[in-house]
Amino acid sequence: MNLCNVDIRVKIGQRLRELRTKKGLSQEKFAFTCDLDRTYIASIEQGKRNVSVANIEKIATALDMSIYEFFKSDLFK
Amino acid sequence: MNLCNVDIRVKIGQRLRELRTKKGLSQEKFAFTCDLDRTYIASIEQGKRNVSVANIEKIATALDMSIYEFFKSDLFK
Repeated sequence: MNLCNVDIRVKIGQRLRELRTKKGLSQEKFAFTCDLDRTYIASIEQGKRNVSVANIEKIATALDMSIYEFFKSDLFK
Repeated sequence: MNLCNVDIRVKIGQRLRELRTKKGLSQEKFAFTCDLDRTYIASIEQGKRNVSVANIEKIATALDMSIYEFFKSDLFK
């Protein structure tokens, strides 16, 4: 699958859903963990949000990983 | 140097300056390359901007690298 033209927002959403579900967390529980709104998490996963680095950091921290690890995916290579 | 409490905005600014200067580009030339305003690039490098992923992607592309490579630094581990 050629990922070059896939919008970054969609890639971020895909990566978040992949990691969140791997941890077995609901959107609600995850949103609570990273102190973000559930509907915001849902819209990120739908590829609708141009997320800021500060919120990426909150998300990565809630996933118990660094920002480097969050972006360590073929989606972003 | 313990990077844990360094604000993500400052880390992004440091990383951008490191990579831009490594390529020998002025802020002005770099801003033109990534179609962003020079003063915006300057304020990112001063650690004052909570940059969005879409702009991080523009910056990484102008640096001829992927977002994964942009974050592949001890600053973000």
